[in-house]
Amino acid sequence: MNHVTVIGTGITQFGTLKEQSLKQLLLDASFQALKEAGFPKVDAVFIGNFMSGSLANQEILGSLIAHDLGLGPIPTAKMEGACASGGIAFRHACEMIEAGVYNTVLVAGGEKMKHAGTDVVTSAINAAMDTDSNEKAAGLSFPGFFGLLANRYFYETEATKKHLAMVALKNRNYALNNPMAQYRDPVTLEEILNARMITEPLGLFDCSPITDGAAAVVLSRGQSGIRVIASSQASGPTQAQEADDLLTFIATKTSADLAYAQAGLGPEDIDVIELHDCFSMTEILAYEALGLAKVREGWKLLENGDTRHGGRIPVNTSGGLLSKGHPIGATGLAQIYQIVEQLRGTACNQVDGARIGLAQNLGGTGSYSTVHIFTNGRSAE
Amino acid sequence: MNHVTVIGTGITQFGTLKEQSLKQLLLDASFQALKEAGFPKVDAVFIGNFMSGSLANQEILGSLIAHDLGLGPIPTAKMEGACASGGIAFRHACEMIEAGVYNTVLVAGGEKMKHAGTDVVTSAINAAMDTDSNEKAAGLSFPGFFGLLANRYFYETEATKKHLAMVALKNRNYALNNPMAQYRDPVTLEEILNARMITEPLGLFDCSPITDGAAAVVLSRGQSGIRVIASSQASGPTQAQEADDLLTFIATKTSADLAYAQAGLGPEDIDVIELHDCFSMTEILAYEALGLAKVREGWKLLENGDTRHGGRIPVNTSGGLLSKGHPIGATGLAQIYQIVEQLRGTACNQVDGARIGLAQNLGGTGSYSTVHIFTNGRSAE
Repeated sequence: MNHVTVIGTGITQFGTLKEQSLKQLLLDASFQALKEAGFPKVDAVFIGNFMSGSLANQEILGSLIAHDLGLGPIPTAKMEGACASGGIAFRHACEMIEAGVYNTVLVAGGEKMKHAGTDVVTSAINAAMDTDSNEKAAGLSFPGFFGLLANRYFYETEATKKHLAMVALKNRNYALNNPMAQYRDPVTLEEILNARMITEPLGLFDCSPITDGAAAVVLSRGQSGIRVIASSQASGPTQAQEADDLLTFIATKTSADLAYAQAGLGPEDIDVIELHDCFSMTEILAYEALGLAKVREGWKLLENGDTRHGGRIPVNTSGGLLSKGHPIGATGLAQIYQIVEQLRGTACNQVDGARIGLAQNLGGTGSYSTVHIFTNGRSAE
Repeated sequence: MNHVTVIGTGITQFGTLKEQSLKQLLLDASFQALKEAGFPKVDAVFIGNFMSGSLANQEILGSLIAHDLGLGPIPTAKMEGACASGGIAFRHACEMIEAGVYNTVLVAGGEKMKHAGTDVVTSAINAAMDTDSNEKAAGLSFPGFFGLLANRYFYETEATKKHLAMVALKNRNYALNNPMAQYRDPVTLEEILNARMITEPLGLFDCSPITDGAAAVVLSRGQSGIRVIASSQASGPTQAQEADDLLTFIATKTSADLAYAQAGLGPEDIDVIELHDCFSMTEILAYEALGLAKVREGWKLLENGDTRHGGRIPVNTSGGLLSKGHPIGATGLAQIYQIVEQLRGTACNQVDGARIGLAQNLGGTGSYSTVHIFTNGRSAE
């Protein structure tokens, strides 16, 4: 099998980007990534995007980007797996390069959401639930689903709203140092705990925002660059009522187990993680599914400060979805952007001596998860 | 490289399917294909779909199908390339199996369109144009675009509306024998020529209809079944004004040239073809891009009857998009369904002794094309 390495990355500002179309955002991030890679010959373009059809009346993103960048009549496609679309597009590129189908692939992801009203966006996001299900028909929304999980988690553990707030505070504090982040104003634990309620027990700061933005990565066969040492994907039930354990996303756990096995590593070997904190509760559940904590004990990591600088393994040093922002199709690639920066030693909120990083991207109510593990090839000191 | 073979196919009725959701259509076609394949262990599910987000508020089709069929937490994704989404999903499966990533992949495609009004569907289809372009802003629609091409073709050749009508008549006559086709009432050349005008010079029968439907294929590594001997994809300009030659889709030509080279065959070796007749004009242009006729001479094949039974190479024996119907995400897979039936010797409008078949799927205004060539492994007599 071939080595797969990241040879270029690009990202746009995350936030409200009124002046730029989705195509322009994708082009900006892609151009940065190609420039950094030295404008290689590109064999294919994969795009991660979830809702450009319904929110921007714009599909054919693959050919738009390939054509506007002058890459020739190469194969292109958009890949969709709800909020995991970016991770899925990245994984397809990894597989194609590892298997020898392509040498070099541009993967870009983006979403343009802020121009639409909150109601329109909420409805569009609900396309990531099963439209035939009684859960969706009964009015379940994504904040409602993750609020339900938080209530159940509180019932089964000693965790409280304070632990959710600690996730939100940690990620906001990281975002303060990320110039690309959507939210860079400091907040206090008190402000988070007293913020406007969205869905009990999730307040405003427990929910990722609506965001415009794009990110891109150029992947290639070879030895130089940041190497991908695991690339995995799994799926899970598309309705809450069908989960064996409401508090364990089988897609996340399966993709993590596969990735650790591929890399020959365990969670104790990872130096830095970007994981899918679409809600503060989701971060705590991901701690458990990724093996950083035992089942029902993820909340304890926050009490110990394990997942911030100075702790065992800093998580979401970019600010995470909660404060960096969550332009859905971009998210999986923006996570990888941050991990690559960490392994290059050039990240905001740099983790000293980071050698191995992991990115985990979730889609739907646990319907999709991808896990990628990266190394800069340096030996442990 | 591994051999890639089709071991199961499925298709739903095409037409107005009020009682079934998109998920149900995809499940029906997928179940048929899996049953025919003997319910193998499936390693991944790829879905071809264009507009389920905007028309059905339903994404996450990959996980929905994998989960509802009980296939386990396997990787899944939706692939989008406008009307070529089905062909693109199929090609990804071919590549993954050929490269040894997966053994067996379910590919399903579908679209649910009839419940939406014509205006809503027309707007949703326009997502397959560049939203930033002045062409789209000026009001160009898909019938408008292909009408423009037809007018230019008439200007550069001796072709007339009669040749367009001959395409529509041929494909309707084929559809009469296809129980799955949307339109199975006989029409005459006169009726086609005198039908309600949609966009000059394209009348009602020159335009593919709005359709509900789904199709599915199970692909596997191995020797038995109908073998895929070429799988190619190319992209092209996303605006008419950027085409070097308005009447040659570079994506179609490039994907055809690549496929013939892969298979070591030329157009003279193909026994039966399904090609992308979204408009009658598109079929004539595809004759040329696929090498069945010289540039600007595709219309002559109709005068000679070359592309119907008794002629050199029957085209669109399923009834084509024009009369079988065009449920966008299903189309690429429904074409492959028909070619597989032909090579098994069990097709409606069976071509006697067909050994080698080709399927060509177009997306956007020439933004995407896939070409697949299949054989049943029999020797020429």
